[in-house]
Amino acid sequence: MNEPADPAPRRARPSGRDARRSQRALTPTAPPYLTREIPPYELLGEEGLASIESHADRILEEIGLEIRGDDEAIELWRRAGARIVAGCRVHVPAGLAREIVRRTAPREFTQHARNPARNVRIGGRHTVFAPAYGPPFVSDLDRGRRYGTLEDFHNFVKLAYASPWLHHSGGTVCEPVDVPVNKRHFDMLYAHMRLSDKPFMGSVTTAARARDSIEMCRILFGAGFVDEHCVILGNVNVNSPLVLDGEASRVIRVYAAANQAPVCVPFILGGAMGPVTTAGALAQCFAEATFCVALGQLERPGSPAILGNFLSSMSLRSGAPTFGTPEPALAYLAIGQLARRLGVPLRCGGNLCASKVADAQAASESANSLWPSFMAGANFMLHAAGWLEAGLAMSYEKFVMDADQLGAFHTLARGISLDDNGFGMDAFREVGPGKHYLGSAHTLSNYQTAFYDFELADNTPYEQWSLEGSHDQLARANRRWKALLASYEPPTIDSATDEALVAYVQSRKATMPDEVG
Amino acid sequence: MNEPADPAPRRARPSGRDARRSQRALTPTAPPYLTREIPPYELLGEEGLASIESHADRILEEIGLEIRGDDEAIELWRRAGARIVAGCRVHVPAGLAREIVRRTAPREFTQHARNPARNVRIGGRHTVFAPAYGPPFVSDLDRGRRYGTLEDFHNFVKLAYASPWLHHSGGTVCEPVDVPVNKRHFDMLYAHMRLSDKPFMGSVTTAARARDSIEMCRILFGAGFVDEHCVILGNVNVNSPLVLDGEASRVIRVYAAANQAPVCVPFILGGAMGPVTTAGALAQCFAEATFCVALGQLERPGSPAILGNFLSSMSLRSGAPTFGTPEPALAYLAIGQLARRLGVPLRCGGNLCASKVADAQAASESANSLWPSFMAGANFMLHAAGWLEAGLAMSYEKFVMDADQLGAFHTLARGISLDDNGFGMDAFREVGPGKHYLGSAHTLSNYQTAFYDFELADNTPYEQWSLEGSHDQLARANRRWKALLASYEPPTIDSATDEALVAYVQSRKATMPDEVG
Repeated sequence: MNEPADPAPRRARPSGRDARRSQRALTPTAPPYLTREIPPYELLGEEGLASIESHADRILEEIGLEIRGDDEAIELWRRAGARIVAGCRVHVPAGLAREIVRRTAPREFTQHARNPARNVRIGGRHTVFAPAYGPPFVSDLDRGRRYGTLEDFHNFVKLAYASPWLHHSGGTVCEPVDVPVNKRHFDMLYAHMRLSDKPFMGSVTTAARARDSIEMCRILFGAGFVDEHCVILGNVNVNSPLVLDGEASRVIRVYAAANQAPVCVPFILGGAMGPVTTAGALAQCFAEATFCVALGQLERPGSPAILGNFLSSMSLRSGAPTFGTPEPALAYLAIGQLARRLGVPLRCGGNLCASKVADAQAASESANSLWPSFMAGANFMLHAAGWLEAGLAMSYEKFVMDADQLGAFHTLARGISLDDNGFGMDAFREVGPGKHYLGSAHTLSNYQTAFYDFELADNTPYEQWSLEGSHDQLARANRRWKALLASYEPPTIDSATDEALVAYVQSRKATMPDEVG
Repeated sequence: MNEPADPAPRRARPSGRDARRSQRALTPTAPPYLTREIPPYELLGEEGLASIESHADRILEEIGLEIRGDDEAIELWRRAGARIVAGCRVHVPAGLAREIVRRTAPREFTQHARNPARNVRIGGRHTVFAPAYGPPFVSDLDRGRRYGTLEDFHNFVKLAYASPWLHHSGGTVCEPVDVPVNKRHFDMLYAHMRLSDKPFMGSVTTAARARDSIEMCRILFGAGFVDEHCVILGNVNVNSPLVLDGEASRVIRVYAAANQAPVCVPFILGGAMGPVTTAGALAQCFAEATFCVALGQLERPGSPAILGNFLSSMSLRSGAPTFGTPEPALAYLAIGQLARRLGVPLRCGGNLCASKVADAQAASESANSLWPSFMAGANFMLHAAGWLEAGLAMSYEKFVMDADQLGAFHTLARGISLDDNGFGMDAFREVGPGKHYLGSAHTLSNYQTAFYDFELADNTPYEQWSLEGSHDQLARANRRWKALLASYEPPTIDSATDEALVAYVQSRKATMPDEVG
């Protein structure tokens, strides 16, 4: 294949601030969140969707879901019409959970950021990308894999802030294991609030920490604002199969009571926490998630919530969890349809992988997760950047590689422009058969915005690439995250607010003995 | 995340033939081609599709397409109703090209293999995966990048034969540059015929070589059979924009006249061989491909053909071709719809990438091509395995990595089984809340076939992976292709047929002086 010559007008190499500015000018304008102009993929027909709903109904009615250690939640369900057996097994009449959700849960809502230009719309045709959540380890090419620290946590908040393609600062971007386990949430929240101005997530490990998280939001946003607007999300895992731990159910209720959004996430590896077949795991997942979203509505009708889904597969050879496999891809596509029918925002997918290194395995597993979750119409995509090793590690290199991929989906989401400029009939008339389009007026006027340009892709000829050291994408990603951190500048913050946050964190920590996790 | 223990029954480690047999038993049954039980993705509505068709019509009518050096082809078009200007510019009245295709081109057809169990169905809900086509270079981890040889060619035919996920032996799997350019096609065809029993492609570099290719098929299949059945494909590139080289148009006519299938492929990098905007490039591509398929129908009505599409983008920074970008992904999705409306099989996409090495860039670019071409409903997917470096190199490692990905799409294509076993209600009743599914009867009876298991994914714990040398997927792929070649055994062939093929090749070669390409 012959490579066309550089069609861009030549200019002297800019340096320093000019270079950064010109680099910025080349970056397509990034919106605060992605809006899909293209339709979602419809995998199943009416009959298939109704069948999954009715099996989810049967699971909730016949088998029931246990809430272990939260009598108030059980009482809410009893009053709503559920049958309670043996004190904690909640049997929900068919259709009731969906009915509760449909009645009051918002189809979409705005999560506010302290910088209003960063507010995100969650639900409908919108998609919000957030970093990976929860890894105890971090890794990079230089230092390898190690436990995460608060410094790592800060670095990933900065990297998410720096990326135009991450709309959200996330939550536990890594576990800062150098901070006592009962005090971490203060430092994590403060980092999101101070080092970024994008929206973020709060603590879910105990109901008390969830309350602390919301309390810090009241300082940042004002108490009245928080009661009327969603400013924080809490990602709550179901103890699948069919158990909601009392602490988790209280966390759901704490967020909902404060008019904040719980993300209700069944955690199912097929064959372990649910059936090994996709339809069954999917029905279970939909049942569990709907049950939890409904609980939030029983606590405070009309409060925002997100229907979650974390469903994956296992290796036939070892029983280890696997990602990027086709079975969860199919499940994402179906759950997207179910969430739209229910009329509630969906969390699913991400750049998920099992690989221990950001190699071809990691990239294809991630793409095999990202594509179906995007086509499913996922509204909130946690684990969209950095995830490695089945979620055990947060990778600096993979973070920037994933962000680069997320950028492309912004272009994909816009679809094909079918206006006169898009068809370019004048260009056909100007150029004619057998000629080159490089110099045509149409090419020149569209060139700067024509194609998504992957920042970390090397498209140079083989000879040049070899001369420059034959670096793979991992090596380029290593340079990239360092450059991003080096050029990081924190967003401004009102100093009185900052002081109030610091004072709150110090005074709360002072009352607590250190706990080691 | 806790990893579930190995649920498979333990057994003594098998060795030798037993190991191979047990390995084979674990491989899901591979059909001779893939059939999609899931619907294609519908990107555009009726209005958008009609708009692309009408712009393609305007390109063919107003601008026209030049056939340079094939008066018979021009005469066919003149008689069909086209207006010929300046001797070679063919102006086709709006709608005529599509009308000619609709009238006689088969919606789907069978390409026969010498082993009837390997016959592939091309069109409709079926997808056929074929290796990369045309790279002058080959590469592997041990020897690096170098010009391809006949030995490399043989190796890739063997690897495609060995893979359950490649349905087709392809054509020029690499250029065997150690064979004179005018004699290569004999050796390539003979390799496909002898070392594999899967279907294959013939020469397209000259009309004479196309005829030689078909002649060899007459020896292999019998002359009468060939006239009535499709046994060979010829992949013909349009000299985009809007030029059909006379040799290419003769090759189309040679294949069509013999009732064999030309694959008609516009080759467009937006901004170079077509407009830089997607709608324009897409309209051009559809116009050119329809024009060529129609030419085959004018030559022999009812002969099989494939509507091709090779559309990609350029780097904003260097003008180099780029792959895995979102603009061609959108184009694939639209051309899939246009091909279905026209009622003709589609070639598009593949595991395309620009990376020089089978790293994360290669994997994500490839996935970003494979996903949309699969969702578009591509019927024949050339470049499905091995493609590296924008098609300049055929990679041994990437070949087996790509094949592993193709396997997953067989599972994806089956969709979600919504029968009683799929929902597994008995498993819910057996296990109940908070228990493990590993030992359940439902898990045990479904485990072996439950999940697609990527052969080249490493899902072991970090510690084990580190102890075993911290190999990335590239290293595992290197071991894999060597093992496949080492265990290769050729399919049997009727000895009289084999002797006739060898005699034909020798006698034809003897009449020719060596030409150097």
